Amino acid sequence: MSEAGGAKEELGVVESREWYLSAYAPDGVPTSEHLKLRTLSLSLGPDSIPDQHTALQLLWISVDPYLRSRMTGHSEGLFFSQFELNQVLTEFGIGRVIRSKSSEFSEGDIVINPYSPIAEYCVVPAASLRKIDAGISLPDYLSSLGVPGFTAWLGIEVLGNAKPGSNVFISAAAGGVGMFAGQLAKLKGCRVIGSTGSDEKVKLLKEEFGYDDAFNYNKETDFDAALSKYLPNGIDIYFENVGGKMLEAVLNHVNRGARIPVCGMISQYNKRWTEREGVRNLLNMVGKEVKMQGFLVGTYLDRFGDFMEEMVGHVKQGKIHSKHKIYNGIESFLESFASLFSSSNSGKVVIQVV
Amino acid sequence: MSEAGGAKEELGVVESREWYLSAYAPDGVPTSEHLKLRTLSLSLGPDSIPDQHTALQLLWISVDPYLRSRMTGHSEGLFFSQFELNQVLTEFGIGRVIRSKSSEFSEGDIVINPYSPIAEYCVVPAASLRKIDAGISLPDYLSSLGVPGFTAWLGIEVLGNAKPGSNVFISAAAGGVGMFAGQLAKLKGCRVIGSTGSDEKVKLLKEEFGYDDAFNYNKETDFDAALSKYLPNGIDIYFENVGGKMLEAVLNHVNRGARIPVCGMISQYNKRWTEREGVRNLLNMVGKEVKMQGFLVGTYLDRFGDFMEEMVGHVKQGKIHSKHKIYNGIESFLESFASLFSSSNSGKVVIQVV
Repeated sequence: MSEAGGAKEELGVVESREWYLSAYAPDGVPTSEHLKLRTLSLSLGPDSIPDQHTALQLLWISVDPYLRSRMTGHSEGLFFSQFELNQVLTEFGIGRVIRSKSSEFSEGDIVINPYSPIAEYCVVPAASLRKIDAGISLPDYLSSLGVPGFTAWLGIEVLGNAKPGSNVFISAAAGGVGMFAGQLAKLKGCRVIGSTGSDEKVKLLKEEFGYDDAFNYNKETDFDAALSKYLPNGIDIYFENVGGKMLEAVLNHVNRGARIPVCGMISQYNKRWTEREGVRNLLNMVGKEVKMQGFLVGTYLDRFGDFMEEMVGHVKQGKIHSKHKIYNGIESFLESFASLFSSSNSGKVVIQVV
Repeated sequence: MSEAGGAKEELGVVESREWYLSAYAPDGVPTSEHLKLRTLSLSLGPDSIPDQHTALQLLWISVDPYLRSRMTGHSEGLFFSQFELNQVLTEFGIGRVIRSKSSEFSEGDIVINPYSPIAEYCVVPAASLRKIDAGISLPDYLSSLGVPGFTAWLGIEVLGNAKPGSNVFISAAAGGVGMFAGQLAKLKGCRVIGSTGSDEKVKLLKEEFGYDDAFNYNKETDFDAALSKYLPNGIDIYFENVGGKMLEAVLNHVNRGARIPVCGMISQYNKRWTEREGVRNLLNMVGKEVKMQGFLVGTYLDRFGDFMEEMVGHVKQGKIHSKHKIYNGIESFLESFASLFSSSNSGKVVIQVV
């Protein structure tokens, strides 16, 4: 903090690098043709900050799969709003206040900004910021205590209604959301199985996150056989992160009254919908009375307090472990983002900006 | 009633024709190779009826699409239990008590039997019967006041949570369930659009069942364009009866928080699941926070009383109209059942046995 404080007096104009979308990418994983870095001169002098705004130096930035759906340039997905071309991209970020025109924040405060530009510096309305207390490491606020943890909690506890003994299956289980979904389900007394993309991550799920068992979907490619083997008593809750063939296999193994909270379908993001894998056995939802429900965390913000109360307790007691895949420097955004779709990562992908 | 009473003394052995499954039909519409009629001699003498049982002469029998899924001979659908080969088929029926060993029922009573053989006579446990009061025509107890009406009510009012102004779309809208779903939604103040298989049925929906509008899916084959035209404000509730391409089109037109109660998917019944039309845009469920839920009426029997109270009122006040497609004689079962899959019918298919 003393560093920022020391720099304050000199702050006039800073060079801030930021990522923007130069062209939409309807198909495939976006590349340097679509995502570009540029340098901006940002005036941070006292007269340049509007009232009720603060200037932040970004410290950590979250990198999440849903961003992909904002880069397609078409509305057919009915998903999130599209990023505008040549505008800076936005994400959850953690920053240090370096100049404040709000009585709520002082220089040196560490804050969460849900609408942070993917940049090194920014000037933002103070109203959207939330101060972070000490005692928990910063990237945890983008993972266990951030959107991924909240998403996992909503899926397992609110929509999934997990109970002791429930048979829970989680896809993309070592990913940013999956790892918390599995741990929360274990804390509820469920039997928890995960699928993930490498043997190393299978090991991680079992040894670090407490999954009862897990399988590598790149090796056990007959998903139907894998589900018979790992979930012989069927599936009560499927925490859906991938879509396509895995969902189809799950629908052949659901128990009566199963719940399928859908927070994303990462296997489907890089294809137009007409090219996606169709799910052919939705009829099974009738006989098994399955409830499948898409959800966005924004709709459940009234539950964020309940979530934080429970999750901070778990984190402080060491009952929930986070794993981060940390990329260094703002310039690493493209690489970190592409890594989400290659099954090379485990844990929550974040950028440590400085 | 006097007729049965008069016949009582002579009742010894009756010839009863009944339908049974002689071979499973994994694909396509079952034919006379699978469904056969035979004649049984049934002893109805006083000593032949066990205690707490009654003998019934069947008057009306319901013919419903879900039966198809009990004739496939494989469990891949995870749907209803399979009929056993060479055993009589069962359905909802209305019968007249012709002999009773239960103090609850007397000769001449008209009763509903949810597990009636598809036959002319039967001997059944009295505990499964329910007496019918006079004042409403008998086939209505198999339609508006029976499983189809209850299914429609659950989908529209319980799972669909219909509100004044909701945009409601109903497929197979002139079918046994759809016609009540539309009328119940209108009574709730919704805007209601239906799809059906002929111009004649489009007319029926608008003129007899009060739909705001309707389209013929055999003519307007671009479902996406049809939904844009008839539901310009999107879809809040889709009462799902058909599955496949229609569901896919709907998922491109759902509003935020849309509900999709799924009571069946008739376009998919005659195909193995691997041959069915896949739904490729389930990802839309996330961005629009759609809730899709399969349901079976058996799970909601605690609501049957609420349903009856409301529906008997509607029927007596002439606010709910029923249309029946009546086939005559037990021998018509095969023809009546096949008609369900040809889009040739409108209304609830029933057999008038005598």
